[in-house]
Amino acid sequence: MSEDVVETTSSNGSSGRTRRRSRRARGEVQGPTVAQLPFRQPVRSVPPTELLSADEIESIHQASLRVLRDTGIEFLDDESKRRLAAAGADVDPDSDRVRFDPEMVMTYVAKAPSIFQFHAVNPERSLTLGGNHVCFGSVASTPNVSDIGAGRRTGNRADHQGLVKLCQMLNQIHLLAGYPVEPTDVHASVRHLHATHDQLTLADKPIHAYSLGRQRNQDCLEMVRIARGISDEQLDTEPSIFSIINTSSPLRIDGPMLQGILEFSSRNQIIVITPFTLAGAMAPVTVVGALVQQNAEALAGIVMTQIVRSGAPVMYGGFTSNVDMRSGSPAFGTPEYMKSAMIGGQLARRYNIPYRSSNVNAANALDAQAAYESVFSLWGAIAGGAHMIMHAAGWMEGGLRASYEKMVLDADLLSMVSQFMTPLVVDDDALAVDAIDEVGPGGHFFGVGHTQSRYRDAFYSPMISDWRNFESWTEAGSPTAESKAGELVATLLAEYEAPALPDERRAELDDYVARRVSEGGVATDF
Amino acid sequence: MSEDVVETTSSNGSSGRTRRRSRRARGEVQGPTVAQLPFRQPVRSVPPTELLSADEIESIHQASLRVLRDTGIEFLDDESKRRLAAAGADVDPDSDRVRFDPEMVMTYVAKAPSIFQFHAVNPERSLTLGGNHVCFGSVASTPNVSDIGAGRRTGNRADHQGLVKLCQMLNQIHLLAGYPVEPTDVHASVRHLHATHDQLTLADKPIHAYSLGRQRNQDCLEMVRIARGISDEQLDTEPSIFSIINTSSPLRIDGPMLQGILEFSSRNQIIVITPFTLAGAMAPVTVVGALVQQNAEALAGIVMTQIVRSGAPVMYGGFTSNVDMRSGSPAFGTPEYMKSAMIGGQLARRYNIPYRSSNVNAANALDAQAAYESVFSLWGAIAGGAHMIMHAAGWMEGGLRASYEKMVLDADLLSMVSQFMTPLVVDDDALAVDAIDEVGPGGHFFGVGHTQSRYRDAFYSPMISDWRNFESWTEAGSPTAESKAGELVATLLAEYEAPALPDERRAELDDYVARRVSEGGVATDF
Repeated sequence: MSEDVVETTSSNGSSGRTRRRSRRARGEVQGPTVAQLPFRQPVRSVPPTELLSADEIESIHQASLRVLRDTGIEFLDDESKRRLAAAGADVDPDSDRVRFDPEMVMTYVAKAPSIFQFHAVNPERSLTLGGNHVCFGSVASTPNVSDIGAGRRTGNRADHQGLVKLCQMLNQIHLLAGYPVEPTDVHASVRHLHATHDQLTLADKPIHAYSLGRQRNQDCLEMVRIARGISDEQLDTEPSIFSIINTSSPLRIDGPMLQGILEFSSRNQIIVITPFTLAGAMAPVTVVGALVQQNAEALAGIVMTQIVRSGAPVMYGGFTSNVDMRSGSPAFGTPEYMKSAMIGGQLARRYNIPYRSSNVNAANALDAQAAYESVFSLWGAIAGGAHMIMHAAGWMEGGLRASYEKMVLDADLLSMVSQFMTPLVVDDDALAVDAIDEVGPGGHFFGVGHTQSRYRDAFYSPMISDWRNFESWTEAGSPTAESKAGELVATLLAEYEAPALPDERRAELDDYVARRVSEGGVATDF
Repeated sequence: MSEDVVETTSSNGSSGRTRRRSRRARGEVQGPTVAQLPFRQPVRSVPPTELLSADEIESIHQASLRVLRDTGIEFLDDESKRRLAAAGADVDPDSDRVRFDPEMVMTYVAKAPSIFQFHAVNPERSLTLGGNHVCFGSVASTPNVSDIGAGRRTGNRADHQGLVKLCQMLNQIHLLAGYPVEPTDVHASVRHLHATHDQLTLADKPIHAYSLGRQRNQDCLEMVRIARGISDEQLDTEPSIFSIINTSSPLRIDGPMLQGILEFSSRNQIIVITPFTLAGAMAPVTVVGALVQQNAEALAGIVMTQIVRSGAPVMYGGFTSNVDMRSGSPAFGTPEYMKSAMIGGQLARRYNIPYRSSNVNAANALDAQAAYESVFSLWGAIAGGAHMIMHAAGWMEGGLRASYEKMVLDADLLSMVSQFMTPLVVDDDALAVDAIDEVGPGGHFFGVGHTQSRYRDAFYSPMISDWRNFESWTEAGSPTAESKAGELVATLLAEYEAPALPDERRAELDDYVARRVSEGGVATDF
């Protein structure tokens, strides 16, 4: 870290309040640490941007209802089709096609809650999803990983653990949104057991479960229940895990995804329906058309959750972007992406359902492109009124790689966004008319009381931005943002300490994983 | 340039429509050129963000009026004080302090126009300032310059010319907002003559005049008049040059700045009042307090323009940022900067006066920091409803350096912002319900007619972003955004051609400069 960064808050923000006193809290750790904003959810004071008129939003809504009524959605799961038919949907007996009456759609969508809690193992990490609350999730599901020193490599468990530790240390990462990198060296039959164990023991933030079949879902639910030390009954009243349900665009929801809705919604856990509608590939080439399809698919998934359990927590996920029409490569952080993110938020607000967006880019290097595509994505998400921003820290290459340095750089960006969302107080003290009069024409404000009593906390102090003049910066070795992020990664991992978890829960968790691994985990034939 | 960038529009967008047919128009230029959006002003369809409530804006407004009434502003120019006294301001006979009755302030502010034209030498480059129109100005006034090959160096005329050529070639740069780099090897007595000659002969976009004394102002006005080939009378009805008036914060306006207002406003030319209110240094440490001071200083300057000539074109400039309270270094693109930019826009709208903001960063390298600080600045400017974004392309190091590569990278960012502001059409064709039905569940959209007839122009095609997969990108030598920008700089300068200027105007311009240089230019004793 830069030597001119002063400590304002321990990077292990809430360590002093966890059950065990940390080494730092006991004063055993010496030297500088990484200054960060404390762990907290930003509460939005910035109004979202209404990019389209209410009439235009209504046109998209009505078009989506026409798609659901006339074209329909394929549901590749018999139990789901049975439930849909029982709820009044038109299920084609000769295919998987399900068509929906518009009134039925809106009846079920209206049952979804507009705000709910997301419980973490550490209650101080629990989150509110909806309202004016915002939260940031880690990168997830990337097959590759990189750091400056060792370069790019296939995902593995050691890096899964390394990134989980980094997520735990970064206060701006509020939840683990999946595996920050896929631990591909762990066999798929038991991967969820080991990875979930990593996440529940190396961190204490809310976690995600991949909907990859009934047994995996049940394993993840049980492990979270054990880590929280609660009963099944309490789990059913307290959302404690979330699962992303991606549609197989266009217009299809696969079996494992539907099993995830059946399993998690019935247990009152959080489902995030996220169509992956790349305009020009799996969705129409027009942004508006891609949003019609996104909306139809999202509504179909949301309806399914409410059929399974009325009032089950669900989020509206928007992930519409465009492809490069020359190469077919997905593009992120583009003008079209920004528009989609903002309009997706308008649609979610139309249904009064919490909205999920992302911080994405398609860059191969942690260079200007990675940064500008990310900030354009964040602009889309924040102006879109997102409640959850997934892949908020660490995502590169359109999701094909997690980067340690990008994770820290993103945490700094998220801090800035968080500060930006913090409301300004407008009172006599802030207006400072007296201070302006005291200083008068030609003076300066460094020395006056109004400045002296406020300067320490007046402005966000970034982790990475280097504001030295060129000469000082050159003398310091011309550090780039990437190299500074690399130093922060090393410092944060060196300072990492595991969160508190009562011994009996830890033992039960260890036993559960050992038993399930000895049973062979789950079949991997789907 | 990347070999996969196809030509959509000549970088010399309007060359075919200028008076002389260009070499390209005559078919003499072979090979690929740089694909860009055409030269045009974006017209905003995105509503600005109202960060503060109307009541809070009113509090800032009223506090500013109290500052103007009780503390006042120093005007360091006798003629200005005489005019102010005549208009009813309270001019202290024993000092330079001028205090304003709130009603007088609002009476004069109300005389300023909400929208006006800015005439260029090439009428196709003329701009509209105000309304929903947005324009982007080049970097200006930096003492240093850099490119990848030759590194960082003190500003000089060759680079002034090089950057002016690049500005001419980049369609997203709508105006030359000053000297892109200071030609410090030209003596200050004649610098304005040579630099303005460069700008009027190497480019055909609207230009800026530095308010550095009456003689310089008159020289610049005369040179613009000659280049436009119009009479003094026509010049007085057609704003054809603009001048940034920076206050010497806190609460002071220097003599040369006031002479600029007297000279340019009386000739109906454009004044942009821009207080440089760095919170914690030349302004209160609270963002709100800094904005009170910004607003007081801006209103004082705007009043002065309207005293000089009722209805004279004037813009409200916002440049409030914060300093790093550890080092005193100015910071840009911070959360505080974003808030200031948005609230500045709310204040300008309060007075119905066009708003100027900036694209700024404090980075020493063209790295992630340069990019994220820039995009945060653009976010502030666009959400702030800015009509003119200064330093929109090429600024580095908090204004201490212009960068050729940053100029091209910024042009790409500006194109994306421009595309983002372009409204989406929401009609049956865009909603694409039929195409969605045609493709159906599990299909893809590449081949359908709806895609085929639209894919070429469906999405913005960036100049720099590299969306290849990691393997292809690595094989191509792992180009960064900076290195790709470097290639584009070389291509654009190789393809540069001077705009058309009738021979008689060119000769008159040459003669004017030769005569004024032989006279010794202007005194440099202030």
